[in-house]
Amino acid sequence: MAHDEAASGKKFAFVLLAFQVVFIVLFGVFAEYHWDAKPQSHRPADANGLVKGVRQADAAKSDAPYNPDYAMKDFYPMFQDVHVMMFIGFGYLMTFLRKYGYSSLGINFLLAAFVIQWATLMRGFLHMHDGKFMIDLTTLLTADFGAAAILITFGAVLGKLSPLQYLIMALIEVSVLEVNEWVGVKIFKTLDVGGSIFVHVFGAYFGLACSRVLSRWEYSANGFNTLKYTTKTTDLFSMVGTIFLWMFWPSFNSVMAPAELQQRAVINTYFALASCCVATFICSFLFHHGKISMEMVQNATLAGGVAIGSTADMVVNPYGALIIGFGAGVLSCVGIRFINGILESKLKVHDTCGVNNLHGMPGILAALISAVVCATASESVYGSSYYKVFPSLEKTEENENPRTPLLQAAWQLSALGMTLGVALLSGALTGSVLRLKIFDPLPGPAMFDDEAYFAM
Amino acid sequence: MAHDEAASGKKFAFVLLAFQVVFIVLFGVFAEYHWDAKPQSHRPADANGLVKGVRQADAAKSDAPYNPDYAMKDFYPMFQDVHVMMFIGFGYLMTFLRKYGYSSLGINFLLAAFVIQWATLMRGFLHMHDGKFMIDLTTLLTADFGAAAILITFGAVLGKLSPLQYLIMALIEVSVLEVNEWVGVKIFKTLDVGGSIFVHVFGAYFGLACSRVLSRWEYSANGFNTLKYTTKTTDLFSMVGTIFLWMFWPSFNSVMAPAELQQRAVINTYFALASCCVATFICSFLFHHGKISMEMVQNATLAGGVAIGSTADMVVNPYGALIIGFGAGVLSCVGIRFINGILESKLKVHDTCGVNNLHGMPGILAALISAVVCATASESVYGSSYYKVFPSLEKTEENENPRTPLLQAAWQLSALGMTLGVALLSGALTGSVLRLKIFDPLPGPAMFDDEAYFAM
Amino acid sequence: MAHDEAASGKKFAFVLLAFQVVFIVLFGVFAEYHWDAKPQSHRPADANGLVKGVRQADAAKSDAPYNPDYAMKDFYPMFQDVHVMMFIGFGYLMTFLRKYGYSSLGINFLLAAFVIQWATLMRGFLHMHDGKFMIDLTTLLTADFGAAAILITFGAVLGKLSPLQYLIMALIEVSVLEVNEWVGVKIFKTLDVGGSIFVHVFGAYFGLACSRVLSRWEYSANGFNTLKYTTKTTDLFSMVGTIFLWMFWPSFNSVMAPAELQQRAVINTYFALASCCVATFICSFLFHHGKISMEMVQNATLAGGVAIGSTADMVVNPYGALIIGFGAGVLSCVGIRFINGILESKLKVHDTCGVNNLHGMPGILAALISAVVCATASESVYGSSYYKVFPSLEKTEENENPRTPLLQAAWQLSALGMTLGVALLSGALTGSVLRLKIFDPLPGPAMFDDEAYFAM
Repeated sequence: MAHDEAASGKKFAFVLLAFQVVFIVLFGVFAEYHWDAKPQSHRPADANGLVKGVRQADAAKSDAPYNPDYAMKDFYPMFQDVHVMMFIGFGYLMTFLRKYGYSSLGINFLLAAFVIQWATLMRGFLHMHDGKFMIDLTTLLTADFGAAAILITFGAVLGKLSPLQYLIMALIEVSVLEVNEWVGVKIFKTLDVGGSIFVHVFGAYFGLACSRVLSRWEYSANGFNTLKYTTKTTDLFSMVGTIFLWMFWPSFNSVMAPAELQQRAVINTYFALASCCVATFICSFLFHHGKISMEMVQNATLAGGVAIGSTADMVVNPYGALIIGFGAGVLSCVGIRFINGILESKLKVHDTCGVNNLHGMPGILAALISAVVCATASESVYGSSYYKVFPSLEKTEENENPRTPLLQAAWQLSALGMTLGVALLSGALTGSVLRLKIFDPLPGPAMFDDEAYFAM
Repeated sequence: MAHDEAASGKKFAFVLLAFQVVFIVLFGVFAEYHWDAKPQSHRPADANGLVKGVRQADAAKSDAPYNPDYAMKDFYPMFQDVHVMMFIGFGYLMTFLRKYGYSSLGINFLLAAFVIQWATLMRGFLHMHDGKFMIDLTTLLTADFGAAAILITFGAVLGKLSPLQYLIMALIEVSVLEVNEWVGVKIFKTLDVGGSIFVHVFGAYFGLACSRVLSRWEYSANGFNTLKYTTKTTDLFSMVGTIFLWMFWPSFNSVMAPAELQQRAVINTYFALASCCVATFICSFLFHHGKISMEMVQNATLAGGVAIGSTADMVVNPYGALIIGFGAGVLSCVGIRFINGILESKLKVHDTCGVNNLHGMPGILAALISAVVCATASESVYGSSYYKVFPSLEKTEENENPRTPLLQAAWQLSALGMTLGVALLSGALTGSVLRLKIFDPLPGPAMFDDEAYFAM
Repeated sequence: MAHDEAASGKKFAFVLLAFQVVFIVLFGVFAEYHWDAKPQSHRPADANGLVKGVRQADAAKSDAPYNPDYAMKDFYPMFQDVHVMMFIGFGYLMTFLRKYGYSSLGINFLLAAFVIQWATLMRGFLHMHDGKFMIDLTTLLTADFGAAAILITFGAVLGKLSPLQYLIMALIEVSVLEVNEWVGVKIFKTLDVGGSIFVHVFGAYFGLACSRVLSRWEYSANGFNTLKYTTKTTDLFSMVGTIFLWMFWPSFNSVMAPAELQQRAVINTYFALASCCVATFICSFLFHHGKISMEMVQNATLAGGVAIGSTADMVVNPYGALIIGFGAGVLSCVGIRFINGILESKLKVHDTCGVNNLHGMPGILAALISAVVCATASESVYGSSYYKVFPSLEKTEENENPRTPLLQAAWQLSALGMTLGVALLSGALTGSVLRLKIFDPLPGPAMFDDEAYFAM
């Protein structure tokens, strides 16, 4: 056994090395700095001699002269908030397992560092110009967004895979994820500023499908039940993750919004999270014999950020944000208290961190809300920002048949359907692949235990 | 007993639910996005066709054209720092109690999420236009400032109230706090950029008065004395709170300053905190038989941020900031070592986290310093920024009888007096209210123990 | 013994007090706010009536009109990231020692707060105008950079000195460090945007030399070996430090770059750290019998940030950054696994935190890389930013004999040589001084143990 572990660890090292070398080669062949990170003289100028800044979307409609650190001022602080969410937020959130803290943090760290490279490449391949793709601060941001989906999936299968399985899972998932999002954004023209559909729904249901297929191991629930007990210390560490995610979620939901709409996205997310936190405590007292459940506080308080994600930059109004957040908190607590057990016992889906409750159902809710908000969008409410929020409704040269609000709503629902379908299917297939012996499936007794892969 | 707890928990849930529903209704009726978070076409323009940005105070004196993300660039990073101070800073700072970590973090989280909604409403009611109040990024900031006062009070009564009592306390305190501040700023024209008077002094003495009135339970000190012992792990968690508060305090003290003065506020606070940290170690060695007390390191190192809070944007000069910080550190350590015991034994005021040492006395010091700095203000030192720092000294249409520096100093002291009086009185009254059976007072033996309200 | 400790603690308090008083006097005599933190009317204007902003370097070449919060927008968020690296990053990184957590955090806090004052003074003395030096946001930043070097050194001697020894060490080191950097930047015109040479190499080798000279105590290795064992809890705390350092390193490497080059520095550092993290896991599996070593994860993952530090704002291209980061990770792991033991057994250099692996060797690598990148710099690649990146190559009035790229490369290597020499020599001398009885050397049995100086 010990020998197998050593051999499996070394094999993993060589696979990882191979991928890293391939990444370096692919970056060498295809990646270059974006104009904004290049010398100013190397940037293309328009007819007026203005050199464009980093934000392609905005720049196209802007008459502002070139501003060399436009991107840094606009994006950098929010980018760092998102970065903290990925590495501290997700990393510590998952340290609640009594004997799996090293793995939660360590594998989270490794997967994220691996994925931000691979997501940069995949996304780059989908946005090539003249055989190259360009890297700027928004590239790093979208790479972090890609990592978010993988870390959500990681939460569903936490404790049940070997490092090699985690890695292959991440590799496949990023590829499918980026294509799904590309189709959703370019073809479906889906509005999803905070990635609730393309990141949260995708990551959660990919992970659940994957976990279901791998559930032949009956060790899952049993192993988990003896090892899942948290300690006070692990709960306090886990709260570090929760609170950083909660605080910085407004950055996650607003950073990709057009500059003019960012503040509204911040306000909406702030209030949605506030009422979601209150809703969680209410449900916790009601569902837990008048006591507070740390599991709910650690997870359900965040559901409001997911549920408002697709509409964060729209005019849902502060009271609307409060209602959305409240609903998400209740939904998430219902999931933890009632649905989780059904998933496990009836459908044999074991969900270690409860990602269905935190990311899955609130993500679906976000998509439904976005359909309602799109369907009821009116120019009188949005005024001059109408077409900035809903670009697909504007008649332009590239968009000769503008959509009606109702049609946009239908496309939002279609994007949800596509994402659910693709995530479940590709997750299940990935799970089947991971069962292959070649990927060193984790032996049952080694689950939920750092000792399998960490020098203690 | 167990049954009572369950019933009390459910009652709390319904009360919380009722408040959340009322909040949503009030937001629906009274709140709307500020111009800056609205479509540009919905914003009022001045005679020159310029549309104003978010900062009312600045905008009124500014000729700058409309900048759509002015507020985001100016405020957002500092706002997030303040947000971290509230949720990570205060939350973890209070985890030092061996058996009360869940409550410290959890109740801190709930109270803050509750208060930022209620503070938004209260402040909104005090700033209505045509039956509506407007929400922008500064609203979120001032809501967080309001939460700070409540979390300071929470520190004074930590471990001694039931969730329902904490909630009612927060509800009453925010109402009084916002009115007190409104009077202080609008009528007294107090200068208090870092909220040392209106946030720190108010929160601390409200909490101490409240704690005093509730002290009929003799369990307080006894229960605390057996449970207060920290462990190495709880101390390290507590330091997470301390250090985040310490690092981000320059943001707290400068974010509300006019843009031109922010940098000075950052510099002053940075140096005040540095010398305060040094002073704390000096006192700790001298007061603790040549050893370092973690209690002092966790608390007194922060007093410099409070003490410079009312004058952070004034010309106190770097050496002045160092002196202020040093004095605050000494004062705070003297409080911990000598005054705390007197308060408890002579005045029957039990101060769980020592807020008198960290917020109370340094806040009073801040007010006294502000009186001195105002009294000695001269146009030759402040130059063109004289009236920006001291607007009440300028003769304008709205301010026909400008104050003299000495008069402004007197108003600073009056604001301190008013705040002390209002906080002590309203805190004591709140304490009396909280003794009512209807608010489920916490039974003595359940104090300082997570088990009363957390599912373990 | 107990008595000695008390006496020694009090003596330390008085020494610290004396220094703080001297600092206050020196600040009073020599320090004033920079123009930017002063009233606008007190700032000098140029011939066109434009008042310059904070960034001297940029302002000199800029025609931009005065922008009162230019510095705040440009620097503040990155400054706060660096601040977090110093106090949370270094502080928690060093908490891994089982019985030395209070000291790691507490002494780190004290030394940093002490050093930012002393570094401000030292640097000020080297940049005096008319008997005064000026303080602005960049002053705070460079003070934090100075603290970084001292905290690196602290890592090398961690657990082996008394508070007084730590303090004297910091005092001497800052003085030498600032002079060395001044010579390196002004005379050698070294390019070292992320301080890999002047901060990391200096801090590491100063500390190692110091540790070597102090190694007459054979307790070092033995005491350490019984006390070094980490616990799961201390490892999770240590990872808080690691991850915050890792996430915010792009800020550290880009904040001092000219605005136009900041984004490139962020991109390069981001990718270097990603591949460095992957490299660390690869090496860990290979060097540790197929298991992950938390020691490597905590340290080697950061080496990429050091290795890219001197060239972060240059055109190394994304794939180049990946290669540099990967190499640094491997180098650092080789250091931990193989070189560390040799240093200890053959050279009697005891390196508590392994700063040679994280800062020393990767810093040397950074300098070598910078020489290669300078030597191969071409105007066709850098275009209009050529002289912004490599100012010494431009012929100007002040620079009549511009360097060739090859000559700049030689100067980079010279700066490395000088820094290594100065650090080793001054570190060794400092170690000798610290052996003096007057500085209360720590008795052997008291090493690596909080009890010596903390009230438990």
